[in-house]
Amino acid sequence: MTLAEATRRFVRDVVLPSEPPPGHHLAADTRRRLQDAAKEYGVFAPHVGAEFGGRGLGIQDWPAVFQEAGYSPFGPVALNCMAPDEGNMRLLELVATTDQQERYLRPLAEGRIRSCFAMTEPHPGAGSDPAALMTTATRTDGGWRIDGTKRFISGAAGAAFAIVMARDDRSGNATMLLVDTDNPGFRIGARVAAIDRAIDGGHPYVHFEDCVVADNAVLGAVGEGFRYAQVRLGPARLTHCMRWLGLARRALDIALDRVERRSLFGSAMKDLGLAQELIARCIIDIETSDAIIAKTARVMADDPRAGAALSSVAKVHCSEAVFAVIDRAMQLCGGDGMTDALPLASFLNEVRPFRVYDGSTETHKWAIARRATRTRTKEIESGLERRMDAVNDHA
Amino acid sequence: MTLAEATRRFVRDVVLPSEPPPGHHLAADTRRRLQDAAKEYGVFAPHVGAEFGGRGLGIQDWPAVFQEAGYSPFGPVALNCMAPDEGNMRLLELVATTDQQERYLRPLAEGRIRSCFAMTEPHPGAGSDPAALMTTATRTDGGWRIDGTKRFISGAAGAAFAIVMARDDRSGNATMLLVDTDNPGFRIGARVAAIDRAIDGGHPYVHFEDCVVADNAVLGAVGEGFRYAQVRLGPARLTHCMRWLGLARRALDIALDRVERRSLFGSAMKDLGLAQELIARCIIDIETSDAIIAKTARVMADDPRAGAALSSVAKVHCSEAVFAVIDRAMQLCGGDGMTDALPLASFLNEVRPFRVYDGSTETHKWAIARRATRTRTKEIESGLERRMDAVNDHA
Amino acid sequence: MTLAEATRRFVRDVVLPSEPPPGHHLAADTRRRLQDAAKEYGVFAPHVGAEFGGRGLGIQDWPAVFQEAGYSPFGPVALNCMAPDEGNMRLLELVATTDQQERYLRPLAEGRIRSCFAMTEPHPGAGSDPAALMTTATRTDGGWRIDGTKRFISGAAGAAFAIVMARDDRSGNATMLLVDTDNPGFRIGARVAAIDRAIDGGHPYVHFEDCVVADNAVLGAVGEGFRYAQVRLGPARLTHCMRWLGLARRALDIALDRVERRSLFGSAMKDLGLAQELIARCIIDIETSDAIIAKTARVMADDPRAGAALSSVAKVHCSEAVFAVIDRAMQLCGGDGMTDALPLASFLNEVRPFRVYDGSTETHKWAIARRATRTRTKEIESGLERRMDAVNDHA
Amino acid sequence: MTLAEATRRFVRDVVLPSEPPPGHHLAADTRRRLQDAAKEYGVFAPHVGAEFGGRGLGIQDWPAVFQEAGYSPFGPVALNCMAPDEGNMRLLELVATTDQQERYLRPLAEGRIRSCFAMTEPHPGAGSDPAALMTTATRTDGGWRIDGTKRFISGAAGAAFAIVMARDDRSGNATMLLVDTDNPGFRIGARVAAIDRAIDGGHPYVHFEDCVVADNAVLGAVGEGFRYAQVRLGPARLTHCMRWLGLARRALDIALDRVERRSLFGSAMKDLGLAQELIARCIIDIETSDAIIAKTARVMADDPRAGAALSSVAKVHCSEAVFAVIDRAMQLCGGDGMTDALPLASFLNEVRPFRVYDGSTETHKWAIARRATRTRTKEIESGLERRMDAVNDHA
Repeated sequence: MTLAEATRRFVRDVVLPSEPPPGHHLAADTRRRLQDAAKEYGVFAPHVGAEFGGRGLGIQDWPAVFQEAGYSPFGPVALNCMAPDEGNMRLLELVATTDQQERYLRPLAEGRIRSCFAMTEPHPGAGSDPAALMTTATRTDGGWRIDGTKRFISGAAGAAFAIVMARDDRSGNATMLLVDTDNPGFRIGARVAAIDRAIDGGHPYVHFEDCVVADNAVLGAVGEGFRYAQVRLGPARLTHCMRWLGLARRALDIALDRVERRSLFGSAMKDLGLAQELIARCIIDIETSDAIIAKTARVMADDPRAGAALSSVAKVHCSEAVFAVIDRAMQLCGGDGMTDALPLASFLNEVRPFRVYDGSTETHKWAIARRATRTRTKEIESGLERRMDAVNDHA
Repeated sequence: MTLAEATRRFVRDVVLPSEPPPGHHLAADTRRRLQDAAKEYGVFAPHVGAEFGGRGLGIQDWPAVFQEAGYSPFGPVALNCMAPDEGNMRLLELVATTDQQERYLRPLAEGRIRSCFAMTEPHPGAGSDPAALMTTATRTDGGWRIDGTKRFISGAAGAAFAIVMARDDRSGNATMLLVDTDNPGFRIGARVAAIDRAIDGGHPYVHFEDCVVADNAVLGAVGEGFRYAQVRLGPARLTHCMRWLGLARRALDIALDRVERRSLFGSAMKDLGLAQELIARCIIDIETSDAIIAKTARVMADDPRAGAALSSVAKVHCSEAVFAVIDRAMQLCGGDGMTDALPLASFLNEVRPFRVYDGSTETHKWAIARRATRTRTKEIESGLERRMDAVNDHA
Repeated sequence: MTLAEATRRFVRDVVLPSEPPPGHHLAADTRRRLQDAAKEYGVFAPHVGAEFGGRGLGIQDWPAVFQEAGYSPFGPVALNCMAPDEGNMRLLELVATTDQQERYLRPLAEGRIRSCFAMTEPHPGAGSDPAALMTTATRTDGGWRIDGTKRFISGAAGAAFAIVMARDDRSGNATMLLVDTDNPGFRIGARVAAIDRAIDGGHPYVHFEDCVVADNAVLGAVGEGFRYAQVRLGPARLTHCMRWLGLARRALDIALDRVERRSLFGSAMKDLGLAQELIARCIIDIETSDAIIAKTARVMADDPRAGAALSSVAKVHCSEAVFAVIDRAMQLCGGDGMTDALPLASFLNEVRPFRVYDGSTETHKWAIARRATRTRTKEIESGLERRMDAVNDHA
Repeated sequence: MTLAEATRRFVRDVVLPSEPPPGHHLAADTRRRLQDAAKEYGVFAPHVGAEFGGRGLGIQDWPAVFQEAGYSPFGPVALNCMAPDEGNMRLLELVATTDQQERYLRPLAEGRIRSCFAMTEPHPGAGSDPAALMTTATRTDGGWRIDGTKRFISGAAGAAFAIVMARDDRSGNATMLLVDTDNPGFRIGARVAAIDRAIDGGHPYVHFEDCVVADNAVLGAVGEGFRYAQVRLGPARLTHCMRWLGLARRALDIALDRVERRSLFGSAMKDLGLAQELIARCIIDIETSDAIIAKTARVMADDPRAGAALSSVAKVHCSEAVFAVIDRAMQLCGGDGMTDALPLASFLNEVRPFRVYDGSTETHKWAIARRATRTRTKEIESGLERRMDAVNDHA
């Protein structure tokens, strides 16, 4: 049995029966129980190196496993491969010192603590445009002082530590710092009532006020924050695609189970062409999403920079596709699809923000178009290609 | 000042500042206060005849007024032109006896009571296919006994009476009956937790158990229920379009106010082409919805049957358009669009069911296509038209 | 019988049987014969004032008639309400002197001559952006000398005169001038092989070389060319929508005739849901196009400026809708839809350019979005409206 | 240099400069010259086994090469991997006897002859529903007599032989037979004027009239025709996707070269957001098409039956995507995109039929939906899965 198959069995046998009602969090003890069960099933922390208790999968092998995990909104938590922890683990594996890894990565990988990633800021700070970063890290004697306000800091309430993006006061470059949440300069602010509800710890404001940390709180090198952010964001964007695609598969299964049993106007619903249209478009969305995720993961494994570029395409396609699949599944379930009798309406609210978080569809489209024009221009300038716009305007 | 203009001023000056937070009902006293204010503004009950205290507008003049009302989710309540009461008032005006009008229509039109319309049933009863009606009305001595279960009965909790669709036990035809909700045979069942939240009284199950009514409870003629349902449903579908289109205009205004003030990547958001694409598509959706509503209302005023047919087209177009406009407005507002800092996310949840309620998009498409093929076939058979499919298959 | 009904009968009885094969022009003698027949049927020149031999319809009554005419690609020619002559007639009625009307409008309205409108230029001249106009009109003794190159000058080959847009050498403003095509300074240049084929006279280049005209060649006032262009373009854009919508209706009828007769996988095609989906979307596109055209025509009749603004919305919606309807009709006709056995493939090529000509979809979307943001800003600034973007960023 | 890279160089250096004007065939001598050049470049017949002079690529390696070939409508002809010959070669490699391979496959693989595949019939014969096959193969003494009419037989004019699908008179099963086109019972019928023009030999009717062949004309086993057709159609559908996707890349490059050089309203076109929207959607369509093609080819290499099923998804997605990319490229090129100054309009006409040929979008959607419901039903019945449609209707 592959790890994906084991994950499939685990999610269907253990996680599905433990799901809370639509719109609710996972209770802390259920979370613990599910994570323990995942360890027994041998499916816990699939993306983490074996030295930290994970299964050591390479990114090219994540898509199948993460989709199986995402079949339940709570599967990724059970496997400990949920955002933002999953991206933080990856970053800590790649960049942290051994000490930092022992202090932060190990308990995180084992599910003993949670974490958050403090980058996004209120307008006009860092949002779709990360370069607008306003939080500062000022050099102090033997350390740094962090000041600024963050928001949409997913998972912050209850997290043990945060990875913070701050602008180095002197150079203007960004630096990443590790901050324990019991630091007196760290404060959780107002709750943000977002349309998605499942995530532990919400998306609150976080305030850094005279938040002092020692030199060993710097994650990686000073001034390399934007580069690390890219290292983190490309794969993080793609694992979101994987998890949500799993949920889209679930939504379609719910709808298929329904059209199997219902009849309308004297026909089985599954034989009604207008239902078939919806089903077929779901399948096309799911299969093309699966294919672009797999391609992007393979590229990312070989060439992280090219993979990050392609992840914009995957993100736009999958986020739109997943929303559309769940929306159609609701349509196929009629009135029940509008209620908490089925979890579809809550799924729709869970995935809606994915078209905005991690770079909105429009921001990515802009980036995709600019990259396309630049690439073509370089090909032409290199002499490898000929222009093909030979319109003679005056004839 | 036209009635539409007065409604516009009323909604913006009085209703908007009184809106409850996203996802909440209107408190009973606010409701009363808003309805009193609407009477003072001279905009109350625009669709009801003057003899029952309304403004007596013909259906062709509803679109402008109802859109202005719908600019707030609570505007229609304030004006007393919200579903299901609005459709019930219309039906009572057309079909009820004078006694029934005094007893039910007058207090309803004056906002003193609420009502509900009990047609939809749990599967396999009346849903997308009304002909599957299972609730029965059995002849008794001097009256009728109603038995059956309904659900999605919008506004039922707190309603003073229901208009019930039941199958006449003898003839198999449907009959409409007026049932006071304090009838011992009337019972509100389980609440249905639907994705929309604003409506007073929810969408609960309603049970009729040995529910006995007198002969004078019959609304209109015995056995004419399906015909009356069509009389009610066509305009009711269209007034939904009008109200929701008003809400779509609101959503776009919220987004326009935002792109006016925000900048991104060094440009004003309103000058970013990818924002302009979203805005332009919103305007196109709004204007075409407005146009098809106006056309349908005019046709309906002249020829209710043709109007009901066209209302399928209006319903599909407007329900999809309104959802898309609000969805794009959320996108234009970025992260804030995903939270209760703006009401857009709650608007999306309010309008989502409109693509299913009152006949799903797919059911209407099926009806539209069948009507198109039948109409064309009749034209050909009448000899007025020639077939244009003169492909000679064997050449 | 209304004029629309008479036009319907004329087009179906007379024009349809006279259509040339797909991809061909109308022969000159057929054109003459059809125009004579249109006069006999009393349907000729519906949009032209009675004093010039037309039916004197106001613009609000054009939609029904022009749609009937457009049911054949050659109907508008037969009725003499085809572009560019139709727009030129309107402009001459509104702006020309009595002498100019007798010399140009009368024979044009009677179908004795054809005309063209010479505005568009090769890049970087006037195209999507009319302000880039490069052709010059230089004051001479008693007249003007015109120099410049135009292209996409529809109908130029065989036209008797052109209305030319040129930049007044001194003021920089644009002026319209009437130029006889036998003027030695007027020369038809290279043919442009465009995807649409039906129009008489093609879309060639036109060269003005030392083209001298007298003072009485000025159409309207000197320097008012851009204003007149707007007067011409708004309605011209809308009549295109009307005519093409007629062709979309034809395409759907062809497809309906086919699904009526064919069966597939043991079902009548008309009962296959995936065919019904296509048909329903066609109907929705047709009805919403009809509605937005009607609304725009009414607005235009009352307020030409507001009508011109709304015509951008109508143009984008209708041009996309018409293309989609024909495309789906082809799909419904399967292999035959791809061949000249049916005219659908040629229809698709006829309408494809409409999404670019008269302002591309993208140019109009840009204009629509800018107008929407400006209108909202003005409402706010006038104090009539309150901003609704009250997000408190720092919480 | 990989074979894909070599193909890229060959197509750009040799094929592009030799392309005929839009809408024209390749002249016979140009075809010969290009095929000779392809042999010199080492890129000829990439999909054919080395024993027949090809490059012996497995299907999982075709996508990159075929896309490069398809960058010109004439690249696949130059490489001898154009439909229908390419699919016929594959079938002959898999199923033909050694004698048949020497007689038909070898000259075909070497580009010395062309072939056709005679399956589709006029209505009500084999079309979207192959089971409707009407052409008969009747047992004679020592052979078979074929009778029937075919149409849309791509490449038939000028082909040296046909692979014919006929219904075995006795068993009712289909059999494939090899028929030389100089057989006196083989006759090319009427030309079909299809919207696509580039293919050699057109899509004419073909008549089999007392067409007698010997026993050794049977391809593979008697009665196995439908199975072989599936063997042929799955990959043939996918290679179409590959080739057309190459053409979509070409269309986008043409548009990118243009937006690079043009400016509009004072901005470089490439910086206009509404152009960026079009470009980004092109890239997303191209990348997702590439990904689903690659996935399908890999599946097909391992499990032809699963690959054939997935090829329905790839076919629908790619055929719609390719059409949309070319359509948007035309839009980006404005007026020139509508003319033969650029090849885009002719590209659109070349690819339009791909949404119908090889199973229309609607037929494939129907198949996709049925497969999805059946697969889910089997999973449930096997006990591996639980139904998730636990709506308690009566509450």
